[in-house]
Amino acid sequence: MEKTSADSLPLTVNSSEKQETVCIFGTGDFGRSLGLKMLQCGYSIVFGSRNPRMSSLLPNGAEVLSYSEAAQKSDIIILAVHREHYDFLTELTELLNGKILVDISNNLKINQYPESNAEYLAQLVPGAHVVKAFNTISAWALQSGALDASRQVFVCGNDSKAKQRVMDIVRTLGLTPLDQGSLIAAKEIENYPLQLFPMWKFPFYLSAILCVFFFFYCVIREVIYPYVYEKKDSTFRMAISIPNRVFPIAALTLLALVYLPGVIAAVLQLYRGTKYRRFPDWLDHWMLCRKQLGLIALGFAFLHVIYTLVIPIRYYVRWTLRNMTITQATAKKENPFSTSTAWLNDSYISLGILGFFLFVLLGITSLPSVSNAVNWREFRFVQSKLGYLTLILCTAHTLVYGGKRFLSPSILKWYLPSAYVIALIIPCTVLVIKFILILPCIDRTLTRIRQGWERNSKFSKLALNVKTHI
Amino acid sequence: MEKTSADSLPLTVNSSEKQETVCIFGTGDFGRSLGLKMLQCGYSIVFGSRNPRMSSLLPNGAEVLSYSEAAQKSDIIILAVHREHYDFLTELTELLNGKILVDISNNLKINQYPESNAEYLAQLVPGAHVVKAFNTISAWALQSGALDASRQVFVCGNDSKAKQRVMDIVRTLGLTPLDQGSLIAAKEIENYPLQLFPMWKFPFYLSAILCVFFFFYCVIREVIYPYVYEKKDSTFRMAISIPNRVFPIAALTLLALVYLPGVIAAVLQLYRGTKYRRFPDWLDHWMLCRKQLGLIALGFAFLHVIYTLVIPIRYYVRWTLRNMTITQATAKKENPFSTSTAWLNDSYISLGILGFFLFVLLGITSLPSVSNAVNWREFRFVQSKLGYLTLILCTAHTLVYGGKRFLSPSILKWYLPSAYVIALIIPCTVLVIKFILILPCIDRTLTRIRQGWERNSKFSKLALNVKTHI
Amino acid sequence: MEKTSADSLPLTVNSSEKQETVCIFGTGDFGRSLGLKMLQCGYSIVFGSRNPRMSSLLPNGAEVLSYSEAAQKSDIIILAVHREHYDFLTELTELLNGKILVDISNNLKINQYPESNAEYLAQLVPGAHVVKAFNTISAWALQSGALDASRQVFVCGNDSKAKQRVMDIVRTLGLTPLDQGSLIAAKEIENYPLQLFPMWKFPFYLSAILCVFFFFYCVIREVIYPYVYEKKDSTFRMAISIPNRVFPIAALTLLALVYLPGVIAAVLQLYRGTKYRRFPDWLDHWMLCRKQLGLIALGFAFLHVIYTLVIPIRYYVRWTLRNMTITQATAKKENPFSTSTAWLNDSYISLGILGFFLFVLLGITSLPSVSNAVNWREFRFVQSKLGYLTLILCTAHTLVYGGKRFLSPSILKWYLPSAYVIALIIPCTVLVIKFILILPCIDRTLTRIRQGWERNSKFSKLALNVKTHI
Repeated sequence: MEKTSADSLPLTVNSSEKQETVCIFGTGDFGRSLGLKMLQCGYSIVFGSRNPRMSSLLPNGAEVLSYSEAAQKSDIIILAVHREHYDFLTELTELLNGKILVDISNNLKINQYPESNAEYLAQLVPGAHVVKAFNTISAWALQSGALDASRQVFVCGNDSKAKQRVMDIVRTLGLTPLDQGSLIAAKEIENYPLQLFPMWKFPFYLSAILCVFFFFYCVIREVIYPYVYEKKDSTFRMAISIPNRVFPIAALTLLALVYLPGVIAAVLQLYRGTKYRRFPDWLDHWMLCRKQLGLIALGFAFLHVIYTLVIPIRYYVRWTLRNMTITQATAKKENPFSTSTAWLNDSYISLGILGFFLFVLLGITSLPSVSNAVNWREFRFVQSKLGYLTLILCTAHTLVYGGKRFLSPSILKWYLPSAYVIALIIPCTVLVIKFILILPCIDRTLTRIRQGWERNSKFSKLALNVKTHI
Repeated sequence: MEKTSADSLPLTVNSSEKQETVCIFGTGDFGRSLGLKMLQCGYSIVFGSRNPRMSSLLPNGAEVLSYSEAAQKSDIIILAVHREHYDFLTELTELLNGKILVDISNNLKINQYPESNAEYLAQLVPGAHVVKAFNTISAWALQSGALDASRQVFVCGNDSKAKQRVMDIVRTLGLTPLDQGSLIAAKEIENYPLQLFPMWKFPFYLSAILCVFFFFYCVIREVIYPYVYEKKDSTFRMAISIPNRVFPIAALTLLALVYLPGVIAAVLQLYRGTKYRRFPDWLDHWMLCRKQLGLIALGFAFLHVIYTLVIPIRYYVRWTLRNMTITQATAKKENPFSTSTAWLNDSYISLGILGFFLFVLLGITSLPSVSNAVNWREFRFVQSKLGYLTLILCTAHTLVYGGKRFLSPSILKWYLPSAYVIALIIPCTVLVIKFILILPCIDRTLTRIRQGWERNSKFSKLALNVKTHI
Repeated sequence: MEKTSADSLPLTVNSSEKQETVCIFGTGDFGRSLGLKMLQCGYSIVFGSRNPRMSSLLPNGAEVLSYSEAAQKSDIIILAVHREHYDFLTELTELLNGKILVDISNNLKINQYPESNAEYLAQLVPGAHVVKAFNTISAWALQSGALDASRQVFVCGNDSKAKQRVMDIVRTLGLTPLDQGSLIAAKEIENYPLQLFPMWKFPFYLSAILCVFFFFYCVIREVIYPYVYEKKDSTFRMAISIPNRVFPIAALTLLALVYLPGVIAAVLQLYRGTKYRRFPDWLDHWMLCRKQLGLIALGFAFLHVIYTLVIPIRYYVRWTLRNMTITQATAKKENPFSTSTAWLNDSYISLGILGFFLFVLLGITSLPSVSNAVNWREFRFVQSKLGYLTLILCTAHTLVYGGKRFLSPSILKWYLPSAYVIALIIPCTVLVIKFILILPCIDRTLTRIRQGWERNSKFSKLALNVKTHI
């Protein structure tokens, strides 16, 4: 049976037979690179090939034999062949019985085939122990040793001893094996190297749309409007002034969008009176990309901070300030100091700095190594409590920035209000609903629902091990 | 015996019997979530319950049986029941003999019971292999897949094969098992999710006290004093000017407090003439939270940098500068350029920037993933050498900032010196003592003590594998 | 045989015999610290010593016996003795047969001996299962629990069961074992704690030379030249103005040097018509330290940003601006606004900010925990695409900064052009060559070469699993 054959494999590399032999089917680029690296790490290598003749490209010290001869030399066979050419293995099924077959293949597209290459291989050669490994490693990285992004080798397979032996090889090559469980995981492992930031797509496009919209909105108000009415060329504002309006707006809006789905979910649970009905798909998806939305928001906040700090070294600003001073000096007019303006100005700057500081803290906590070092309670504390505090500070920063002239009709241009007024809509909505939700009477109901209570439920339940999250 | 029964467990998931059956005792919130997740990952699930009837809440495809019927279906039983209800298991001891019992429970308070829930369970059912797992995972995270903070599952248990099987399940669910050793570790694992930054408490309160003290100190000097003597309203200074005094003071003081305990420890060892006597508890505790003190200091330094950089965009500053210019222009008085002032001003800014830069480097090195990638020697080099350099630069920054007016009596207000003068006391003390400690004669004695030499010792010792740390 | 004796070791800590006994040879500093820690974690400890008498320094509860007596008490022996004293073990070979010998020793220099201490030990006592472990942990860290840099214990050995038992002990002590494979890895594990940032040496010295060169270059142009011709004391410029020229130049040059080797490699491959010939050693080495070069460049960019942002709070700048304003005010001369200057000024600032922002992104992606979380395709996208975009933005920032006065002869001082003109040479060269390389006709050839095609090759090849990298 399965178990017996697995037991007959030597459990580990013995010091006596250190020169373990590994067979590689296929003499292509990756096969050769892997062979060379394994030779350097003390393995002896046999290549299996359709045309078994030595080529100058193959690493020195390796043998090249026919597939069947090579297979007999080792009980670990690494398959460095495209999936389309797996057919030849059906002729070798008897030879491969009980051996470890390592599938290292990748596809060209995500979900190219109905089943993963490794599962297909396991069906072709049912007697072999198929292990998926090495597909995330590049040939170049193997050769050069520059393995920054790819020291991790995902390994999966149904036979744990076979998996263990492959993981030993992985470690000997200086790589880090990550056991991903049974062969079912092969599909995900094969898709993994083909992905390009899948969780970032929606947040990225959303923020791009936000930026473009607000950029043109500001161009209309600040470049086209003065040109039409005053024939003034303000196009240079598109380099710094307008980006420095667009970035904070995008940051605040995206930050609010991080907390909006949680608020919607709570309202939905309150309305339904139960937590046991699924949220709509869009809400689920939205909740899963909150981290990405938040990090993009942090990026915009960072840009806003630097764009603000460079203000005093801009030519335009220096010119304006100097001209104002000269005009005043010529007119010999003193400019009285307004304490209320100083208060407003200083406090909106201070609120912004503190908000940015907390925002950076949130960002640091979302680094994988930091978030792994905190427990669930601490993570919730940071992401929920500190997160809301950040949202409050940033919203307050924008409100105080508006100050007195907030909704005065004089700032309307072509009936368009200032951009930051629009930016305040979502954050204020989120904060108001959140404020209502934490009123004691509503919070109590919500907590009960989250502990498993149902408004229309017949039987009471043991609320055990309840660990919920907003 | 133990070993035989463990051997009789199937070692791994075979491809033939992929549909492994797992039993879950308890149909509460977490039991259901876990059951659903395991069903999705290819397990077949049997719930054990007091009242075995199907409920609409249970995931489709799962069976519900009585406890004893369910236990017979599988050799892995996950216990999703409160510790207070564990008693019913005593009736099933025979059935559970040799089976794997997974304890997933949490408590409401740290150290709620004398022994951990898992150890209590092992006493109740001595024939079962108890494994602690899953307690750090939230039901919500399991359902939604949003496992940012909690992909890690701490696993411990006395039987390594039982532990291995549980770790295989953990991996199949897409989580990362972390083997924590034997069941003794269960207490710590159960306390873990209840903690809220325990190491940060002392540094946090200390820095809060520092901030409040210096805030009021500065308010007295800069708001109340001018109000009393000149009837001037300077309250707006509380928004930016005063925080920008408090933050650098807190940063410098906390940074010095990071290095003070090491200096005290060295003095203590010199005085005692041995390293083999324990330090007082307060010193031990202090040394263990140096990293947290340093990171909070970095936070304050960061705030100080931004509060300083916004100075030129403040209304108050612009108004002051403009008025000075106008006054001068009206008086037609040239203001001679002072090279020494330029030197003082530029060098204090430059020292501050370099100090902050090194401080940020120190902060980056203390990120878990970075500090894991350096060895002990490199870590000591960064945290000790670069750390002292940072302290020297930041102290010099403050000293040069004081410049000529450092201790002139004119800056005393109500006999209170400037706040930064007070801030210099601890850093200068640390630096002076450290300077004395690295004088060759004293350093030699200290090194010998740290290598195991004792002043009053009778016999010489092999100083082997000495790796000490200041 | 090997295997039988390994099998006879109990597989794991049984709950019945929890009080496992471990023997430690050597009563020095590290031996005692380890013994104390293990006692605290529930082990019972027997010390083996030449002079077996109890000392007050040994932890309470431990026994001290002669080597041979102690060895009989346990099947795990930790060797806390210098390599020079290993000889005494030859007398105990029979006793040690089949036992686990843990080598924890370190050397004083890298590659001090031809073979690693652990391999030497395995030769001395061939019947024992030698496991290398604990050498990266300091005695101080063990005692105090402050294990920031060194929670990781590298473990290697030829017998996997022996290794497993040592890893269990490591975990019980609260440390993280990292399986490094067979005993061959011992050499690297022993060298590891002696290294001091080996990959950083070349980038560090290179950037130091760059800084010193450009510092003196700027001192000549901006301090000595005006002193010679105008007798003007500009020495104060050395504190901020000149560093703020040197840092951006170093940053841009180093960033270009990150991408130069890739471009050279591509040209070399095109010239040779094959990817199968090794690159010269200097190129290989250069490619391996690109990450470090990039991070140092980021450090300089960070310094440049802060040095730029403090400009408006400098005394010199304020004095200059004020004097200009006063002069203008006195002359009653209006200064016309130049839109083109505003455009140039704003866009060079904006380009710099965006370049710095992308640079910071690149830096964050190179944090170990972040780069582990992305796949190869994503890593290449960030480091290659975003990296080139960063280089383009930073080069454009410098070009626009130069603006109109770029190569006007009036800026030559003693025939020396402005420093930033020199800084542009390497980045522009890299960008021009890269631009040529991505022209479709050349790119096609290069891609074919990288997929394994050879210009002078006789036989066509299966290009399988090709994953190349620039």
